[in-house]
Amino acid sequence: MKLGNHAYRTIWPDGFGNPVKIIDQRFLPHRFDVVALDTLADAETAIRDMWVRGAPLIGVTGVYGVYLALRAQNDDAGLTGAHERLLATRPTAVNLRWALQRAVQKIAPLAAADRALAAYQLAAEIADEDVEINRMIGVHGRDVIEAIAASKPAGEAVNILTHCNAGWLATVDWGTATSPIYQAHDGGTSLHVWVDETRPRNQGASITAFELANHGVPHTVIVDNAGGHLMQHGQVDMVITGTDRTTANGHVCNKIGTYLKALAAFDNAVPFYVALPSPTIDWSLTDGVAQIPIEERSAREVSHIWGRLDDGRHAEVKIIPDESAAANPAFDVTPARLITGGLITERGIAAASSAGLQKLFPAEQRNGA
Amino acid sequence: MKLGNHAYRTIWPDGFGNPVKIIDQRFLPHRFDVVALDTLADAETAIRDMWVRGAPLIGVTGVYGVYLALRAQNDDAGLTGAHERLLATRPTAVNLRWALQRAVQKIAPLAAADRALAAYQLAAEIADEDVEINRMIGVHGRDVIEAIAASKPAGEAVNILTHCNAGWLATVDWGTATSPIYQAHDGGTSLHVWVDETRPRNQGASITAFELANHGVPHTVIVDNAGGHLMQHGQVDMVITGTDRTTANGHVCNKIGTYLKALAAFDNAVPFYVALPSPTIDWSLTDGVAQIPIEERSAREVSHIWGRLDDGRHAEVKIIPDESAAANPAFDVTPARLITGGLITERGIAAASSAGLQKLFPAEQRNGA
Repeated sequence: MKLGNHAYRTIWPDGFGNPVKIIDQRFLPHRFDVVALDTLADAETAIRDMWVRGAPLIGVTGVYGVYLALRAQNDDAGLTGAHERLLATRPTAVNLRWALQRAVQKIAPLAAADRALAAYQLAAEIADEDVEINRMIGVHGRDVIEAIAASKPAGEAVNILTHCNAGWLATVDWGTATSPIYQAHDGGTSLHVWVDETRPRNQGASITAFELANHGVPHTVIVDNAGGHLMQHGQVDMVITGTDRTTANGHVCNKIGTYLKALAAFDNAVPFYVALPSPTIDWSLTDGVAQIPIEERSAREVSHIWGRLDDGRHAEVKIIPDESAAANPAFDVTPARLITGGLITERGIAAASSAGLQKLFPAEQRNGA
Repeated sequence: MKLGNHAYRTIWPDGFGNPVKIIDQRFLPHRFDVVALDTLADAETAIRDMWVRGAPLIGVTGVYGVYLALRAQNDDAGLTGAHERLLATRPTAVNLRWALQRAVQKIAPLAAADRALAAYQLAAEIADEDVEINRMIGVHGRDVIEAIAASKPAGEAVNILTHCNAGWLATVDWGTATSPIYQAHDGGTSLHVWVDETRPRNQGASITAFELANHGVPHTVIVDNAGGHLMQHGQVDMVITGTDRTTANGHVCNKIGTYLKALAAFDNAVPFYVALPSPTIDWSLTDGVAQIPIEERSAREVSHIWGRLDDGRHAEVKIIPDESAAANPAFDVTPARLITGGLITERGIAAASSAGLQKLFPAEQRNGA
């Protein structure tokens, strides 16, 4: 998507044999840099220290990391070592594990001299798959936004609330929840996005707002507490979020606080949509609250907040007493009954239910059961 | 309540003729100071610049401000001038307006030489009234906590979630939502408080956590997004909040985000209580969402966060892009149907309905209708 006048992906190759370029996302929204990854160690650092984040993007960066490793050492030890070291950077990232396995399976049988090129090509292939899935989510989701626009008085913007960052900076391009927004906006539909700041890590206030500002999409940042009030007063036409993991019957595990917005949407008859790339469906699960373990992250994310000082430097400030503890569950589960709009997948919009998902993904559902 | 080994009120007289003492709350939780108010100008500054905050406390500070003014000039011009200047410090504060009117009505008929003492005595009287109301809310609310404790396995703490600061630092003593907590804790009931940080001004993370830490009440700070998840997993036994304004049929206007917690409590069958001093009931209103205008505060409260740097200094950091707008509605309305526990008043616990409030306040309800 656009940053100023320039169209970017979050990661891109610069010709076979050369380093790979990424956007360093650590200091968003206050600074962004383009960085070249030249070695396996560079790729490890970029993933582990969150220069790049978001499941699909981490997977692609991992495979480019294999390519960078094989440039330096293309024997079996080089391949195995790269696999192990990259996997260890974010051990719970399912996409990374899957992408690296795919890389090893494809590359291990090849002659050493062919391996680096194969990894380079595979990374591009996985990146393009991600872009295409997200583009199609946008095609289907754009229809929803355009239908709402058509039902409103001419010239009145469609008000869309989103939580966290399911944007292009968490993927290779388009994003998931943002893809319908970008496509409707680019198509000329008048819209406005309420951006939940998304404490504790503020991915909404920093990354989603940064994306929307740079692509020229009208938006307003609000605290996570404000969405219910806006819905009570008719100021939200639809909600759309991403998902980290979805059960076979449509329960959605997403960033902490998503459940509260779904409750408010339900209470005010505001349609609630989830943008769902099918690889995030876990066909083996049927009870999100009971079956999905929720990661408890560092208390420091709650007790401290990072931002820009008046003098332009960056700093972290502490906001709770030294004597107080803090807890930090990172995700919550939104029951399917609250997802009244539906699940927007690359194959179309499914009702949030077993039957709804089965209709669009008959083979996948069978294999998981 | 206690700060360290010392029992405090938020404001206290130091003998007639002398300055009045307050706790300067501006730098909580990182620093607190006791300050002497010596002049009318001191009282104005303390209210306007939020050295003191919370409706009951502002009212009492206003009347002490009249006393300080009359020490210097006790004629009619002195009284009228003090009234006008103090009223202008927080023009929308209903308690302040009411307390100052009460002061003028009592003092204006008196001989000039008697006025300062009368103001001094009235301020103490209003302060004691506030303390007694809050103490009684605590007596009734403590019963609720003790009943929950009795229903749990021996030794298991009662988990109470609260939002914002309806604590003793917003009143003269006890607080409203915190009064049952302090009384149950002081009575030996094992309890633990989940403290919503309460963006954008973080009154939970800073002030409520500070209060509880200093009084020795076990507690954990969470982001506003986390409460729903905790309720889904049985980690919350009850919710209790304060209220800024309550309709005659029990709709509660309180700090933004209260509504979201009430929805989550309802969805998980967690009883939701509101601590309600009867002076906050507006007997003329019956539809909270439609009739109560919601204050829109400065966008800077959303875009910037204040806290303590690693080196001990305090600073504000900006957390949104320079190109992004922010909106900041300060309150929301929780419909009576979600207040499943009830309204804890100084006269007992009322169902959140016209009939419930009428039973406890028959005369008041009639006068407002």
